Amino acid sequence: MKNTVEQQKESAQVITPSQLLEHWQGHRRVTRRAIEAFPEKEFFTHSIGGMRPFSAMVCELLAIAVPGLQEIVSGEPATFNEDLNHGNSKAKILEWWDEATEQINALWAKIPEEQFQKHVKLFGQYEGPVQSQIFYFMDNEIHHRGQGYVYLRSLGVEPPLFYERS
Amino acid sequence: MKNTVEQQKESAQVITPSQLLEHWQGHRRVTRRAIEAFPEKEFFTHSIGGMRPFSAMVCELLAIAVPGLQEIVSGEPATFNEDLNHGNSKAKILEWWDEATEQINALWAKIPEEQFQKHVKLFGQYEGPVQSQIFYFMDNEIHHRGQGYVYLRSLGVEPPLFYERS
Repeated sequence: MKNTVEQQKESAQVITPSQLLEHWQGHRRVTRRAIEAFPEKEFFTHSIGGMRPFSAMVCELLAIAVPGLQEIVSGEPATFNEDLNHGNSKAKILEWWDEATEQINALWAKIPEEQFQKHVKLFGQYEGPVQSQIFYFMDNEIHHRGQGYVYLRSLGVEPPLFYERS
Repeated sequence: MKNTVEQQKESAQVITPSQLLEHWQGHRRVTRRAIEAFPEKEFFTHSIGGMRPFSAMVCELLAIAVPGLQEIVSGEPATFNEDLNHGNSKAKILEWWDEATEQINALWAKIPEEQFQKHVKLFGQYEGPVQSQIFYFMDNEIHHRGQGYVYLRSLGVEPPLFYERS
Protein backbone atom coordinates (compact mmCIF):
# COMPACT_ATOMS: atom_id res chain seq x y z
CA MET A 1 0.00 0.00 0.00
CA LYS A 2 1.22 3.48 -0.83
CA ASN A 3 1.03 6.06 1.91
CA THR A 4 -0.63 9.43 1.44
CA VAL A 5 2.61 11.33 0.86
CA GLU A 6 3.64 8.93 -1.91
CA GLN A 7 0.19 9.15 -3.49
CA GLN A 8 0.29 12.94 -3.48
CA LYS A 9 3.77 12.94 -4.96
CA GLU A 10 2.68 10.55 -7.69
CA SER A 11 -0.45 12.49 -8.56
CA ALA A 12 1.62 15.67 -8.88
CA GLN A 13 4.06 14.15 -11.38
CA VAL A 14 3.44 14.02 -15.13
CA ILE A 15 5.43 10.78 -15.00
CA THR A 16 7.16 9.51 -11.86
CA PRO A 17 10.74 8.21 -11.88
CA SER A 18 9.49 4.66 -11.29
CA GLN A 19 6.96 4.91 -14.11
CA LEU A 20 9.68 6.23 -16.43
CA LEU A 21 12.00 3.35 -15.50
CA GLU A 22 9.22 0.83 -16.13
CA HIS A 23 8.42 2.55 -19.43
CA TRP A 24 12.05 2.20 -20.52
CA GLN A 25 12.42 -1.38 -19.31
CA GLY A 26 9.16 -2.23 -21.09
CA HIS A 27 10.68 -0.92 -24.32
CA ARG A 28 13.89 -2.80 -23.58
CA ARG A 29 11.89 -6.04 -23.25
CA VAL A 30 10.45 -5.42 -26.74
CA THR A 31 13.94 -4.73 -28.11
CA ARG A 32 15.16 -7.96 -26.52
CA ARG A 33 12.40 -9.87 -28.29
CA ALA A 34 13.34 -8.15 -31.57
CA ILE A 35 16.95 -9.33 -31.11
CA GLU A 36 15.72 -12.85 -30.36
CA ALA A 37 13.52 -12.83 -33.46
CA PHE A 38 16.51 -12.32 -35.80
CA PRO A 39 18.12 -15.33 -37.43
CA GLU A 40 21.67 -15.49 -35.98
CA LYS A 41 23.49 -14.77 -39.25
CA GLU A 42 21.21 -11.98 -40.45
CA PHE A 43 21.39 -10.22 -37.09
CA PHE A 44 25.03 -9.46 -37.94
CA THR A 45 24.80 -9.10 -41.71
CA HIS A 46 21.35 -8.08 -42.97
CA SER A 47 21.17 -4.53 -44.30
CA ILE A 48 18.83 -2.34 -46.33
CA GLY A 49 19.88 0.80 -48.20
CA GLY A 50 23.45 0.68 -46.91
CA MET A 51 22.36 0.87 -43.27
CA ARG A 52 24.07 -0.95 -40.41
CA PRO A 53 23.02 -4.47 -39.43
CA PHE A 54 20.68 -4.57 -36.43
CA SER A 55 23.49 -5.96 -34.24
CA ALA A 56 25.43 -2.71 -34.72
CA MET A 57 22.40 -0.64 -33.73
CA VAL A 58 21.98 -2.79 -30.61
CA CYS A 59 25.65 -2.28 -29.73
CA GLU A 60 25.03 1.46 -29.99
CA LEU A 61 22.12 1.11 -27.55
CA LEU A 62 24.32 -0.85 -25.15
CA ALA A 63 27.05 1.78 -25.47
CA ILE A 64 24.60 4.52 -24.49
CA ALA A 65 22.30 3.19 -21.75
CA VAL A 66 24.52 2.08 -18.86
CA PRO A 67 27.50 4.41 -19.56
CA GLY A 68 25.08 7.34 -19.95
CA LEU A 69 23.30 6.55 -16.67
CA GLN A 70 26.64 6.02 -14.93
CA GLU A 71 27.69 9.52 -15.96
CA ILE A 72 24.34 10.94 -14.79
CA VAL A 73 24.78 9.25 -11.41
CA SER A 74 28.50 9.79 -10.86
CA GLY A 75 29.25 12.96 -12.81
CA GLU A 76 32.32 11.16 -14.18
CA PRO A 77 32.67 11.57 -17.98
CA ALA A 78 31.55 8.42 -19.82
CA THR A 79 33.25 7.07 -22.90
CA PHE A 80 31.15 6.08 -25.88
CA ASN A 81 32.28 2.71 -27.21
CA GLU A 82 29.98 0.77 -29.49
CA ASP A 83 32.77 -1.43 -30.88
CA LEU A 84 31.91 -4.39 -28.68
CA ASN A 85 33.72 -7.69 -28.92
CA HIS A 86 30.67 -9.92 -29.48
CA GLY A 87 32.27 -12.44 -31.84
CA ASN A 88 29.05 -12.51 -33.91
CA SER A 89 27.23 -14.22 -31.05
CA LYS A 90 23.63 -13.21 -30.46
CA ALA A 91 23.73 -15.04 -27.10
CA LYS A 92 26.61 -12.79 -26.01
CA ILE A 93 24.65 -9.65 -26.91
CA LEU A 94 21.55 -10.94 -25.12
CA GLU A 95 23.73 -11.63 -22.07
CA TRP A 96 25.00 -8.03 -22.14
CA TRP A 97 21.41 -6.84 -22.63
CA ASP A 98 20.28 -8.64 -19.48
CA GLU A 99 23.26 -7.37 -17.50
CA ALA A 100 22.38 -3.85 -18.62
CA THR A 101 18.79 -4.38 -17.43
CA GLU A 102 20.02 -4.99 -13.89
CA GLN A 103 22.58 -2.17 -14.03
CA ILE A 104 19.93 0.29 -15.24
CA ASN A 105 17.67 -0.66 -12.31
CA ALA A 106 20.55 -0.24 -9.84
CA LEU A 107 21.69 3.10 -11.29
CA TRP A 108 18.13 4.43 -11.52
CA ALA A 109 17.70 4.03 -7.78
CA LYS A 110 20.58 6.50 -7.36
CA ILE A 111 18.94 9.34 -9.33
CA PRO A 112 17.13 11.70 -6.94
CA GLU A 113 13.82 13.04 -8.28
CA GLU A 114 15.12 16.61 -8.50
CA GLN A 115 18.04 15.54 -10.69
CA PHE A 116 15.87 14.97 -13.77
CA GLN A 117 15.82 18.73 -14.39
CA LYS A 118 19.55 19.20 -13.82
CA HIS A 119 21.53 20.33 -16.87
CA VAL A 120 24.31 17.92 -17.84
CA LYS A 121 26.69 17.27 -20.71
CA LEU A 122 27.05 13.56 -21.50
CA PHE A 123 29.78 11.73 -23.42
CA GLY A 124 31.62 15.03 -23.59
CA GLN A 125 29.19 16.62 -26.02
CA TYR A 126 25.41 16.12 -25.55
CA GLU A 127 23.87 18.86 -23.43
CA GLY A 128 20.47 19.15 -21.77
CA PRO A 129 18.49 18.32 -18.65
CA VAL A 130 18.82 14.75 -17.39
CA GLN A 131 15.22 13.97 -18.45
CA SER A 132 15.98 14.94 -22.06
CA GLN A 133 19.04 12.68 -22.04
CA ILE A 134 17.04 9.71 -20.82
CA PHE A 135 14.27 10.35 -23.33
CA TYR A 136 16.95 10.49 -26.01
CA PHE A 137 18.25 7.05 -24.93
CA MET A 138 14.71 5.66 -25.18
CA ASP A 139 13.66 7.44 -28.36
CA ASN A 140 16.87 6.36 -30.08
CA GLU A 141 16.12 2.77 -29.06
CA ILE A 142 12.53 2.94 -30.38
CA HIS A 143 13.82 4.53 -33.61
CA HIS A 144 16.41 1.83 -34.31
CA ARG A 145 14.14 -1.00 -33.20
CA GLY A 146 11.55 0.28 -35.70
CA GLN A 147 14.27 -0.08 -38.32
CA GLY A 148 14.97 -3.60 -37.03
CA TYR A 149 11.29 -4.41 -37.57
CA VAL A 150 11.65 -3.56 -41.28
CA TYR A 151 14.73 -5.81 -41.47
CA LEU A 152 12.71 -8.61 -39.85
CA ARG A 153 9.75 -8.13 -42.21
CA SER A 154 12.11 -8.10 -45.20
CA LEU A 155 13.45 -11.46 -43.94
CA GLY A 156 9.91 -12.83 -43.67
CA VAL A 157 10.05 -12.83 -39.86
CA GLU A 158 7.14 -11.51 -37.76
CA PRO A 159 8.45 -8.85 -35.33
CA PRO A 160 7.35 -8.83 -31.68
CA LEU A 161 4.18 -6.92 -30.81
CA PHE A 162 5.03 -3.24 -30.42
CA TYR A 163 2.42 -2.66 -27.73
CA GLU A 164 3.25 -5.71 -25.60
CA ARG A 165 5.68 -4.40 -22.99
CA SER A 166 5.59 -7.02 -20.23
CA MET B 1 11.11 35.48 -16.01
CA LYS B 2 9.71 32.57 -14.09
CA ASN B 3 8.57 33.22 -10.56
CA THR B 4 9.73 31.13 -7.61
CA VAL B 5 6.60 28.97 -7.45
CA GLU B 6 6.94 28.05 -11.13
CA GLN B 7 10.63 27.29 -10.68
CA GLN B 8 9.94 25.02 -7.72
CA LYS B 9 7.18 23.25 -9.61
CA GLU B 10 9.50 22.71 -12.57
CA SER B 11 12.39 21.43 -10.47
CA ALA B 12 10.02 18.95 -8.79
CA GLN B 13 8.83 17.46 -12.08
CA VAL B 14 10.67 14.66 -13.91
CA ILE B 15 9.33 16.30 -17.08
CA THR B 16 6.92 19.23 -17.06
CA PRO B 17 3.82 19.35 -19.28
CA SER B 18 5.39 22.10 -21.40
CA GLN B 19 8.63 20.13 -21.80
CA LEU B 20 6.63 17.07 -22.82
CA LEU B 21 4.67 19.06 -25.40
CA GLU B 22 7.88 20.52 -26.82
CA HIS B 23 9.41 17.01 -26.88
CA TRP B 24 6.45 15.73 -28.89
CA GLN B 25 6.32 18.70 -31.25
CA GLY B 26 10.09 18.33 -31.76
CA HIS B 27 9.51 14.74 -32.87
CA ARG B 28 6.61 15.87 -35.04
CA ARG B 29 8.91 18.34 -36.79
CA VAL B 30 11.28 15.45 -37.60
CA THR B 31 8.37 13.36 -38.89
CA ARG B 32 7.25 16.29 -41.05
CA ARG B 33 10.74 16.45 -42.57
CA ALA B 34 10.64 12.68 -43.18
CA ILE B 35 7.33 13.10 -45.06
CA GLU B 36 8.83 15.95 -47.09
CA ALA B 37 11.89 13.84 -47.93
CA PHE B 38 9.79 11.16 -49.69
CA PRO B 39 9.34 11.34 -53.43
CA GLU B 40 5.59 11.97 -53.98
CA LYS B 41 4.85 8.64 -55.66
CA GLU B 42 6.88 6.46 -53.30
CA PHE B 43 5.31 8.09 -50.24
CA PHE B 44 2.07 6.34 -51.26
CA THR B 45 3.45 3.17 -52.82
CA HIS B 46 6.89 2.16 -51.51
CA SER B 47 6.88 -0.92 -49.31
CA ILE B 48 9.36 -3.40 -47.83
CA GLY B 49 8.45 -6.88 -46.61
CA GLY B 50 4.73 -6.40 -47.20
CA MET B 51 4.53 -3.42 -44.86
CA ARG B 52 2.30 -0.38 -45.42
CA PRO B 53 3.57 2.60 -47.39
CA PHE B 54 4.78 5.46 -45.17
CA SER B 55 1.69 7.54 -46.08
CA ALA B 56 -0.52 4.93 -44.37
CA MET B 57 1.64 5.06 -41.23
CA VAL B 58 1.37 8.86 -41.22
CA CYS B 59 -2.42 8.64 -41.58
CA GLU B 60 -2.40 6.36 -38.51
CA LEU B 61 -0.42 9.02 -36.61
CA LEU B 62 -2.92 11.69 -37.67
CA ALA B 63 -5.81 9.44 -36.62
CA ILE B 64 -4.32 9.07 -33.14
CA ALA B 65 -2.86 12.41 -32.06
CA VAL B 66 -5.67 14.97 -32.20
CA PRO B 67 -8.60 12.56 -31.66
CA GLY B 68 -6.72 10.96 -28.74
CA LEU B 69 -6.01 14.33 -27.13
CA GLN B 70 -9.60 15.46 -27.75
CA GLU B 71 -10.84 12.42 -25.82
CA ILE B 72 -8.35 13.12 -23.01
CA VAL B 73 -9.58 16.72 -22.77
CA SER B 74 -13.30 16.20 -23.28
CA GLY B 75 -13.91 12.69 -21.99
CA GLU B 76 -16.02 12.10 -25.11
CA PRO B 77 -15.15 8.78 -26.84
CA ALA B 78 -12.99 9.32 -29.92
CA THR B 79 -13.34 7.36 -33.13
CA PHE B 80 -10.22 5.92 -34.74
CA ASN B 81 -10.27 6.62 -38.48
CA GLU B 82 -7.05 6.31 -40.43
CA ASP B 83 -8.81 5.99 -43.80
CA LEU B 84 -8.22 9.60 -44.75
CA ASN B 85 -9.24 11.00 -48.12
CA HIS B 86 -5.85 12.38 -49.18
CA GLY B 87 -6.14 11.67 -52.91
CA ASN B 88 -2.45 10.63 -52.96
CA SER B 89 -1.40 14.21 -52.28
CA LYS B 90 1.58 14.72 -50.00
CA ALA B 91 0.71 18.43 -49.77
CA LYS B 92 -2.72 17.51 -48.37
CA ILE B 93 -1.15 15.32 -45.69
CA LEU B 94 1.38 18.02 -44.79
CA GLU B 95 -1.52 20.48 -44.51
CA TRP B 96 -3.30 18.12 -42.08
CA TRP B 97 -0.02 17.66 -40.22
CA ASP B 98 0.32 21.41 -39.69
CA GLU B 99 -3.31 21.74 -38.63
CA ALA B 100 -2.74 18.96 -36.10
CA THR B 101 0.32 20.84 -34.76
CA GLU B 102 -1.90 23.79 -33.85
CA GLN B 103 -4.70 21.61 -32.50
CA ILE B 104 -2.26 19.68 -30.30
CA ASN B 105 -0.98 22.96 -28.82
CA ALA B 106 -4.51 24.18 -28.16
CA LEU B 107 -5.68 20.89 -26.62
CA TRP B 108 -2.52 20.56 -24.51
CA ALA B 109 -3.27 23.85 -22.78
CA LYS B 110 -6.51 22.26 -21.54
CA ILE B 111 -4.84 19.33 -19.75
CA PRO B 112 -4.34 20.18 -16.06
CA GLU B 113 -1.06 18.90 -14.59
CA GLU B 114 -2.80 16.43 -12.28
CA GLN B 115 -4.63 14.80 -15.20
CA PHE B 116 -1.51 13.05 -16.52
CA GLN B 117 -1.90 10.39 -13.82
CA LYS B 118 -5.64 9.94 -14.37
CA HIS B 119 -6.66 6.50 -15.67
CA VAL B 120 -8.53 6.66 -18.99
CA LYS B 121 -9.70 4.33 -21.72
CA LEU B 122 -9.14 5.78 -25.21
CA PHE B 123 -10.72 4.85 -28.53
CA GLY B 124 -12.97 2.48 -26.60
CA GLN B 125 -10.17 0.05 -25.76
CA TYR B 126 -6.73 1.36 -24.69
CA GLU B 127 -6.45 1.72 -20.92
CA GLY B 128 -3.88 3.46 -18.75
CA PRO B 129 -2.92 6.78 -17.18
CA VAL B 130 -3.02 9.79 -19.50
CA GLN B 131 0.80 10.02 -19.49
CA SER B 132 1.09 6.46 -20.80
CA GLN B 133 -1.37 7.23 -23.59
CA ILE B 134 0.61 10.29 -24.67
CA PHE B 135 3.90 8.39 -24.55
CA TYR B 136 2.25 5.72 -26.67
CA PHE B 137 1.29 8.34 -29.26
CA MET B 138 4.91 9.56 -29.36
CA ASP B 139 6.61 6.17 -29.22
CA ASN B 140 4.38 4.88 -32.00
CA GLU B 141 5.36 7.90 -34.11
CA ILE B 142 9.09 7.35 -33.46
CA HIS B 143 8.68 3.63 -34.26
CA HIS B 144 6.96 4.20 -37.60
CA ARG B 145 9.20 7.10 -38.56
CA GLY B 146 12.20 4.82 -37.96
CA GLN B 147 10.59 2.47 -40.48
CA GLY B 148 10.12 5.40 -42.85
CA TYR B 149 13.87 6.08 -42.57
CA VAL B 150 14.59 2.57 -43.90
CA TYR B 151 12.17 3.18 -46.78
CA LEU B 152 14.01 6.45 -47.54
CA ARG B 153 17.45 4.80 -47.39
CA SER B 154 16.24 1.99 -49.66
CA LEU B 155 15.15 4.71 -52.12
CA GLY B 156 18.58 6.32 -51.93
CA VAL B 157 17.21 9.33 -50.04
CA GLU B 158 19.00 10.76 -46.98
CA PRO B 159 16.53 10.93 -44.05
CA PRO B 160 16.37 14.03 -41.81
CA LEU B 161 18.70 14.15 -38.81
CA PHE B 162 17.14 12.19 -35.94
CA TYR B 163 18.58 14.46 -33.28
CA GLU B 164 17.64 17.78 -34.91
CA ARG B 165 14.30 18.69 -33.34
CA SER B 166 13.93 22.41 -33.99
